Amino acid sequence: MVEGVYDVLPGTYAGLRVEDFGNSVMIPAFSDLHVHAPQYPQRGLGMDLLLEDWLNAYTFPLEARYADFEFAREVYEAFIQDLLANGTFHACIFGTIHRESTLYLVRRMEELGMRAFVGKVNMDMQSPPYLCETVDGSLRETEAFLEACSGNRFAKPILTPRFAPTCSRELLGGLGRLGAKYSVGVQTHLVESLWEAGEAKRLNPDCSCDTEIYEKSGLLGNGPLVAAHFIFPSEDDICILKKYGGYAVQCPDATVNIIAGIMQTAALSDRGVHLSLGSDIAGGHLPGVYTQAARSVQLSKLKWFYEPDGNRPISFANAFYMATKEGGALFGNTGSLEAGSAFDALVIRDASDSFRQLSPEETVERFCYSGGPGDIRARFLGGKRL
Amino acid sequence: MVEGVYDVLPGTYAGLRVEDFGNSVMIPAFSDLHVHAPQYPQRGLGMDLLLEDWLNAYTFPLEARYADFEFAREVYEAFIQDLLANGTFHACIFGTIHRESTLYLVRRMEELGMRAFVGKVNMDMQSPPYLCETVDGSLRETEAFLEACSGNRFAKPILTPRFAPTCSRELLGGLGRLGAKYSVGVQTHLVESLWEAGEAKRLNPDCSCDTEIYEKSGLLGNGPLVAAHFIFPSEDDICILKKYGGYAVQCPDATVNIIAGIMQTAALSDRGVHLSLGSDIAGGHLPGVYTQAARSVQLSKLKWFYEPDGNRPISFANAFYMATKEGGALFGNTGSLEAGSAFDALVIRDASDSFRQLSPEETVERFCYSGGPGDIRARFLGGKRL
Repeated sequence: MVEGVYDVLPGTYAGLRVEDFGNSVMIPAFSDLHVHAPQYPQRGLGMDLLLEDWLNAYTFPLEARYADFEFAREVYEAFIQDLLANGTFHACIFGTIHRESTLYLVRRMEELGMRAFVGKVNMDMQSPPYLCETVDGSLRETEAFLEACSGNRFAKPILTPRFAPTCSRELLGGLGRLGAKYSVGVQTHLVESLWEAGEAKRLNPDCSCDTEIYEKSGLLGNGPLVAAHFIFPSEDDICILKKYGGYAVQCPDATVNIIAGIMQTAALSDRGVHLSLGSDIAGGHLPGVYTQAARSVQLSKLKWFYEPDGNRPISFANAFYMATKEGGALFGNTGSLEAGSAFDALVIRDASDSFRQLSPEETVERFCYSGGPGDIRARFLGGKRL
Repeated sequence: MVEGVYDVLPGTYAGLRVEDFGNSVMIPAFSDLHVHAPQYPQRGLGMDLLLEDWLNAYTFPLEARYADFEFAREVYEAFIQDLLANGTFHACIFGTIHRESTLYLVRRMEELGMRAFVGKVNMDMQSPPYLCETVDGSLRETEAFLEACSGNRFAKPILTPRFAPTCSRELLGGLGRLGAKYSVGVQTHLVESLWEAGEAKRLNPDCSCDTEIYEKSGLLGNGPLVAAHFIFPSEDDICILKKYGGYAVQCPDATVNIIAGIMQTAALSDRGVHLSLGSDIAGGHLPGVYTQAARSVQLSKLKWFYEPDGNRPISFANAFYMATKEGGALFGNTGSLEAGSAFDALVIRDASDSFRQLSPEETVERFCYSGGPGDIRARFLGGKRL
């Protein structure tokens, strides 16, 4: 836990060992609010395919392999190490439909003290036969998953219906009952694209918007609500998301790669929606959330260029806030170095080739735009140096 | 020089030492057709400022420092090392107005055998007083620059009027005469933004388009024509560019950072325009041209999303071609591994964490989307391993 940030060390701490990182800057570790761990092996592949072809050629066949626990263990270990290398210590993660494999992620992150919400995916329609569950089977496996996570301090479960086009109302209703019984929240892809928003409404004609499907299914209000993408929200979507204190997660690279569009970050922020960032591996191709902070500024500029009405470029400080304090709040007292925060922090190296002393703000901006894991000099997770 | 690519080594080479790179893939080294070497220290800084503020706060004061040769030497050495680290062995480079400093770049690249076109920048109006030249002074320094480069095999000079808004017709006409006298081509920022295209026409009412200003000034046809950005070309711009076999250089990250817009790559390619890529350090924030190949695919998707009429997503193969063979052709027999090409090549490591054997194409795509200098196992420049 962070005790405080001081210009001069108070007398109480006089005896402690002091480490001097020179001109480096210490920042909170990053939070990734939308990432598909099983898609880690396919990052940066098939990136010029259209979404449906990409899912069928790469994603679905790959996700099927997680029926094999040994394969899952090997991939998830590499995935977790890459999160740590990139300074992502908190994450909201989609697994696959497979309970045991997804539990490996939960157990390892709990063991490491990484705060996380991890979900076994649910899908019972409009999916490849080899990934399509029955309602009963999906609910049974999900309940077993929730029970296996009980008592965890860091890595917690979250309900994870893939998205409205692949989940029947019967399945969603069953998940809603589990959410209420176990006080567990929900993550999904919400108004991700014009196609998805339209399909959600076509399949659920009694709902005015995508978000209402989850509300009517009893999935909201039991725990956190994490809405990935949220690119085409209606007024109703925004109102329901705000009512439950939900997080809208921008995944800048991914929504360009899948040609979904650009989130209206400035407008949503003005409306008081909690905004955060996600790598969306492997719709996105870079694991570092810091890269997405830079991309968020870039996309706000393009959004403004193409849709000036109601949009504007966001500042780098806004984007960095999304990647740290605002996203981190989902996991409790993380994403900040204020007193009382978990000491999950990174030491960013001052760029030695800048030919003048960079300010702390410039050091952080340079890192997010042009840096990589090699620019992180030290990592502290739960107060322990990795 | 590349003798050939063989499945089985011909008998003639039986005695030669063979190096086995296993599952790695060998690709041609990259060509960066638009990069500002002096802006290297400011990459990734002030990226949320608007262009004019960014130029005044960062770029112009920094460019003024190149009056100091020692500063230039230190920066340019770091810049060249970063080009090599990122596998960029051929580049079309803007220096500053300063002759001696810019000549350092030329000499070092010549010494290293890096093919380049390097320009001392010209600007005599609408510029900060401390960077604004007189017509006579600018032409005298430029001629001395051209003479100092004579006889170079690899690093050659190119005329570099910054862009129409900062160059009088008198200056451009003088540069045109130097171009004809020394058989030297020209690089500039062309129809870079709606503002620039409009300003170019306002200042040059006798010209139908930005490109015609350079044609009327006698700058075209003396050597290569390299047009950075080329986002809003009129039919006339395209016709003149094609008439002189000019290269249109897309700088994807930069044109988003400066909110210029998105090049119509597919449409220009259909028209038979030579397309290539530039990092545009420091409008762009990443030195690796491979990152811009990935970004070019991404931006073609956004262009199609927002302006479906006449645009379409390009393939990764298209973008890689721009970054290698098409851009490389500017420098002669580079950008390819075909027989007769200069042996400027990179060995890209097969990603060890892919959990299956990637195809050569996938290895290259993964590298461009998600890789970095650490994924280049070996670099060959002019046949010598670096």
